[in-house]
Amino acid sequence: MTPPVTAPALFDEIAFDAAGLVPVIAQQYDTNEILMVAWMNRDAVAETLATGRVCYWSRSRQALWRKGETSGQVQRLIELRLDCDGDTMLALVDQTGVACHTGRRSCFFRAARDGDWHVIAEVEKSPDELYGEH
Amino acid sequence: MTPPVTAPALFDEIAFDAAGLVPVIAQQYDTNEILMVAWMNRDAVAETLATGRVCYWSRSRQALWRKGETSGQVQRLIELRLDCDGDTMLALVDQTGVACHTGRRSCFFRAARDGDWHVIAEVEKSPDELYGEH
Repeated sequence: MTPPVTAPALFDEIAFDAAGLVPVIAQQYDTNEILMVAWMNRDAVAETLATGRVCYWSRSRQALWRKGETSGQVQRLIELRLDCDGDTMLALVDQTGVACHTGRRSCFFRAARDGDWHVIAEVEKSPDELYGEH
Repeated sequence: MTPPVTAPALFDEIAFDAAGLVPVIAQQYDTNEILMVAWMNRDAVAETLATGRVCYWSRSRQALWRKGETSGQVQRLIELRLDCDGDTMLALVDQTGVACHTGRRSCFFRAARDGDWHVIAEVEKSPDELYGEH
Protein backbone atom coordinates (compact mmCIF):
# COMPACT_ATOMS: atom_id res chain seq x y z
CA MET A 1 0.00 0.00 0.00
CA THR A 2 1.14 3.51 -0.76
CA PRO A 3 1.47 5.59 2.42
CA PRO A 4 -0.54 8.83 2.56
CA VAL A 5 1.13 11.87 1.03
CA THR A 6 0.95 13.62 4.39
CA ALA A 7 3.19 11.02 6.04
CA PRO A 8 5.20 12.59 8.89
CA ALA A 9 8.49 11.42 7.34
CA LEU A 10 8.02 13.86 4.50
CA PHE A 11 7.43 16.85 6.78
CA ASP A 12 10.23 15.94 9.17
CA GLU A 13 12.81 16.73 6.49
CA ILE A 14 11.42 20.19 5.70
CA ALA A 15 13.12 22.95 7.71
CA PHE A 16 10.19 25.33 8.13
CA ASP A 17 11.28 28.76 9.40
CA ALA A 18 10.21 30.40 12.68
CA ALA A 19 6.93 31.43 11.01
CA GLY A 20 6.30 27.84 9.88
CA LEU A 21 7.04 28.65 6.24
CA VAL A 22 9.39 27.43 3.53
CA PRO A 23 10.13 29.23 0.24
CA VAL A 24 9.18 27.39 -2.93
CA ILE A 25 10.52 28.02 -6.44
CA ALA A 26 8.02 27.23 -9.19
CA GLN A 27 9.64 25.99 -12.39
CA GLN A 28 7.87 25.05 -15.63
CA TYR A 29 8.59 21.33 -15.85
CA ASP A 30 9.32 21.02 -19.58
CA THR A 31 11.16 24.26 -20.40
CA ASN A 32 12.81 24.64 -16.96
CA GLU A 33 11.79 28.31 -16.95
CA ILE A 34 11.63 29.78 -13.44
CA LEU A 35 8.18 31.23 -12.95
CA MET A 36 7.96 32.62 -9.39
CA VAL A 37 8.91 32.16 -5.75
CA ALA A 38 6.30 31.96 -2.99
CA TRP A 39 5.83 30.32 0.41
CA MET A 40 4.19 27.18 1.76
CA ASN A 41 3.29 26.16 5.27
CA ARG A 42 2.64 22.56 6.30
CA ASP A 43 -1.00 22.68 5.23
CA ALA A 44 -0.08 24.10 1.82
CA VAL A 45 2.46 21.31 1.25
CA ALA A 46 -0.12 18.70 2.25
CA GLU A 47 -2.83 20.16 0.03
CA THR A 48 -0.48 20.53 -2.94
CA LEU A 49 0.60 16.90 -2.72
CA ALA A 50 -2.94 15.63 -2.11
CA THR A 51 -4.63 17.56 -4.93
CA GLY A 52 -1.86 17.95 -7.50
CA ARG A 53 -2.70 21.64 -7.73
CA VAL A 54 -0.18 24.03 -6.23
CA CYS A 55 -1.34 25.80 -3.07
CA TYR A 56 0.84 28.42 -1.36
CA TRP A 57 0.54 30.38 1.88
CA SER A 58 -0.16 34.05 1.32
CA ARG A 59 1.83 36.05 3.87
CA SER A 60 -0.13 39.22 3.09
CA ARG A 61 -3.54 37.58 3.44
CA GLN A 62 -2.41 35.03 6.07
CA ALA A 63 -4.40 32.35 4.28
CA LEU A 64 -3.96 29.41 1.95
CA TRP A 65 -3.51 30.68 -1.60
CA ARG A 66 -4.70 28.27 -4.25
CA LYS A 67 -2.71 29.60 -7.16
CA GLY A 68 -5.09 30.64 -9.95
CA GLU A 69 -8.32 30.55 -7.94
CA THR A 70 -8.96 34.21 -8.83
CA SER A 71 -6.96 34.61 -12.03
CA GLY A 72 -7.42 31.15 -13.53
CA GLN A 73 -3.63 30.85 -13.92
CA VAL A 74 -3.33 27.51 -12.11
CA GLN A 75 -0.24 25.38 -11.57
CA ARG A 76 -0.50 21.61 -11.90
CA LEU A 77 2.14 19.88 -9.80
CA ILE A 78 4.50 17.56 -11.63
CA GLU A 79 7.04 16.97 -8.84
CA LEU A 80 8.02 18.54 -5.52
CA ARG A 81 11.72 18.62 -4.63
CA LEU A 82 13.69 19.58 -1.52
CA ASP A 83 17.20 20.98 -1.29
CA CYS A 84 20.18 19.60 0.63
CA ASP A 85 19.53 21.48 3.87
CA GLY A 86 15.76 21.20 3.62
CA ASP A 87 15.00 24.91 3.78
CA THR A 88 13.99 25.52 0.16
CA MET A 89 11.65 23.57 -2.10
CA LEU A 90 11.34 23.39 -5.86
CA ALA A 91 7.96 22.71 -7.46
CA LEU A 92 8.04 21.45 -11.03
CA VAL A 93 4.71 22.60 -12.41
CA ASP A 94 2.68 22.97 -15.55
CA GLN A 95 1.66 26.63 -15.52
CA THR A 96 -1.56 27.68 -17.22
CA GLY A 97 -1.04 31.12 -18.78
CA VAL A 98 1.10 33.46 -16.74
CA ALA A 99 2.62 33.16 -13.25
CA CYS A 100 3.22 36.84 -12.43
CA HIS A 101 0.55 39.21 -11.14
CA THR A 102 1.84 41.77 -13.66
CA GLY A 103 0.62 39.48 -16.44
CA ARG A 104 4.06 38.30 -17.45
CA ARG A 105 4.92 34.62 -17.74
CA SER A 106 7.65 34.87 -15.07
CA CYS A 107 8.14 37.19 -12.10
CA PHE A 108 11.86 37.48 -12.98
CA PHE A 109 11.40 39.96 -15.84
CA ARG A 110 14.08 42.51 -14.90
CA ALA A 111 17.75 42.08 -15.83
CA ALA A 112 20.74 44.06 -14.51
CA ARG A 113 22.29 45.91 -17.43
CA ASP A 114 24.58 48.94 -17.33
CA GLY A 115 23.90 49.65 -13.68
CA ASP A 116 20.11 49.51 -13.75
CA TRP A 117 17.23 47.07 -14.26
CA HIS A 118 15.79 46.55 -17.71
CA VAL A 119 12.43 44.91 -18.39
CA ILE A 120 13.06 41.89 -20.63
CA ALA A 121 9.59 40.31 -20.86
CA GLU A 122 6.29 41.47 -22.28
CA VAL A 123 2.94 41.56 -20.47
CA GLU A 124 0.95 38.66 -21.94
CA LYS A 125 -2.31 39.23 -20.06
CA SER A 126 -3.38 42.57 -18.58
CA PRO A 127 -3.97 42.65 -14.80
CA ASP A 128 -7.54 43.76 -15.64
CA GLU A 129 -7.98 40.56 -17.59
CA LEU A 130 -6.50 38.53 -14.72
CA TYR A 131 -8.21 40.17 -11.75
CA GLY A 132 -10.85 42.59 -13.07
CA GLU A 133 -14.60 42.22 -13.46
CA HIS A 134 -15.50 39.83 -16.24
CA MET B 1 29.62 56.27 -21.00
CA THR B 2 28.34 53.19 -19.22
CA PRO B 3 27.49 53.95 -15.57
CA PRO B 4 29.26 51.86 -12.93
CA VAL B 5 27.63 48.54 -12.06
CA THR B 6 27.27 49.69 -8.46
CA ALA B 7 24.96 52.57 -9.44
CA PRO B 8 22.47 53.34 -6.62
CA ALA B 9 19.50 52.91 -8.99
CA LEU B 10 20.21 49.21 -9.16
CA PHE B 11 20.30 48.72 -5.39
CA ASP B 12 17.24 50.90 -4.77
CA GLU B 13 15.04 48.30 -6.47
CA ILE B 14 16.30 45.38 -4.37
CA ALA B 15 14.16 44.75 -1.28
CA PHE B 16 16.86 43.53 1.12
CA ASP B 17 15.38 41.94 4.26
CA ALA B 18 15.87 43.16 7.85
CA ALA B 19 19.30 41.48 7.89
CA GLY B 20 20.30 43.22 4.66
CA LEU B 21 20.03 40.04 2.61
CA VAL B 22 18.18 38.84 -0.48
CA PRO B 23 17.82 35.21 -1.59
CA VAL B 24 19.33 34.32 -4.96
CA ILE B 25 18.46 31.33 -7.14
CA ALA B 26 21.38 30.10 -9.24
CA GLN B 27 20.32 28.61 -12.58
CA GLN B 28 22.58 27.09 -15.24
CA TYR B 29 22.12 29.53 -18.12
CA ASP B 30 21.97 27.07 -21.02
CA THR B 31 20.08 24.09 -19.58
CA ASN B 32 17.92 26.17 -17.15
CA GLU B 33 18.72 23.63 -14.41
CA ILE B 34 18.27 25.07 -10.92
CA LEU B 35 21.52 24.61 -9.05
CA MET B 36 21.15 26.14 -5.58
CA VAL B 37 19.71 28.99 -3.51
CA ALA B 38 21.89 31.24 -1.36
CA TRP B 39 21.99 34.83 -0.09
CA MET B 40 23.60 38.08 -1.13
CA ASN B 41 24.04 41.36 0.72
CA ARG B 42 24.74 44.65 -1.01
CA ASP B 43 28.49 44.03 -1.15
CA ALA B 44 27.99 40.57 -2.65
CA VAL B 45 25.72 41.97 -5.38
CA ALA B 46 28.27 44.68 -6.16
CA GLU B 47 31.20 42.24 -6.28
CA THR B 48 29.28 39.75 -8.41
CA LEU B 49 28.40 42.41 -10.99
CA ALA B 50 31.88 43.95 -10.94
CA THR B 51 33.85 40.71 -11.28
CA GLY B 52 31.45 38.45 -13.21
CA ARG B 53 32.09 35.71 -10.64
CA VAL B 54 29.26 34.94 -8.27
CA CYS B 55 29.84 35.99 -4.66
CA TYR B 56 27.27 35.21 -1.94
CA TRP B 57 26.99 36.13 1.73
CA SER B 58 27.54 33.19 4.04
CA ARG B 59 25.09 33.44 6.93
CA SER B 60 26.95 30.77 8.91
CA ARG B 61 30.38 32.39 8.48
CA GLN B 62 29.03 35.98 8.34
CA ALA B 63 31.42 36.73 5.50
CA LEU B 64 31.48 37.13 1.74
CA TRP B 65 31.48 33.69 0.11
CA ARG B 66 33.18 33.62 -3.25
CA LYS B 67 31.56 30.48 -4.63
CA GLY B 68 34.24 27.94 -5.49
CA GLU B 69 37.14 29.62 -3.70
CA THR B 70 37.69 26.45 -1.64
CA SER B 71 36.15 23.78 -3.88
CA GLY B 72 37.02 25.20 -7.29
CA GLN B 73 33.36 24.90 -8.31
CA VAL B 74 33.00 28.51 -9.44
CA GLN B 75 30.00 30.21 -11.02
CA ARG B 76 30.54 32.65 -13.86
CA LEU B 77 27.73 35.21 -14.01
CA ILE B 78 25.79 35.40 -17.26
CA GLU B 79 22.92 37.64 -16.09
CA LEU B 80 21.38 38.83 -12.82
CA ARG B 81 17.60 39.17 -12.68
CA LEU B 82 15.14 40.58 -10.13
CA ASP B 83 11.54 39.54 -9.50
CA CYS B 84 8.41 41.69 -9.57
CA ASP B 85 8.47 42.68 -5.91
CA GLY B 86 12.25 42.93 -5.73
CA ASP B 87 12.77 40.47 -2.89
CA THR B 88 14.25 37.54 -4.82
CA MET B 89 17.00 37.46 -7.43
CA LEU B 90 17.87 34.96 -10.13
CA ALA B 91 21.46 34.51 -11.22
CA LEU B 92 21.98 32.88 -14.60
CA VAL B 93 25.40 31.29 -14.27
CA ASP B 94 27.83 28.93 -15.91
CA GLN B 95 28.62 26.43 -13.15
CA THR B 96 31.98 24.69 -13.12
CA GLY B 97 31.49 21.14 -11.86
CA VAL B 98 28.92 20.79 -9.10
CA ALA B 99 26.96 23.37 -7.10
CA CYS B 100 26.02 21.31 -4.03
CA HIS B 101 28.33 20.72 -1.08
CA THR B 102 27.26 17.05 -1.20
CA GLY B 103 29.01 16.78 -4.57
CA ARG B 104 25.82 16.71 -6.62
CA ARG B 105 25.24 19.01 -9.55
CA SER B 106 22.14 20.58 -7.90
CA CYS B 107 21.09 21.00 -4.27
CA PHE B 108 17.54 19.94 -5.21
CA PHE B 109 18.25 16.22 -5.37
CA ARG B 110 15.31 14.91 -3.31
CA ALA B 111 11.84 14.35 -4.79
CA ALA B 112 8.58 13.68 -2.91
CA ARG B 113 7.35 10.23 -3.85
CA ASP B 114 4.90 8.01 -1.98
CA GLY B 115 5.02 10.15 1.15
CA ASP B 116 8.78 10.41 1.56
CA TRP B 117 11.82 11.98 -0.10
CA HIS B 118 13.78 9.98 -2.65
CA VAL B 119 17.29 10.85 -3.80
CA ILE B 120 17.18 11.37 -7.57
CA ALA B 121 20.73 12.53 -8.35
CA GLU B 122 24.13 10.91 -8.04
CA VAL B 123 27.15 12.32 -6.23
CA GLU B 124 29.51 13.45 -9.02
CA LYS B 125 32.42 14.58 -6.83
CA SER B 126 33.07 13.33 -3.32
CA PRO B 127 33.12 15.97 -0.55
CA ASP B 128 36.70 14.82 0.15
CA GLU B 129 37.61 15.73 -3.39
CA LEU B 130 35.85 19.09 -3.02
CA TYR B 131 37.02 20.13 0.43
CA GLY B 132 39.65 17.65 1.59
CA GLU B 133 43.41 17.88 1.59
CA HIS B 134 44.85 17.68 -1.91
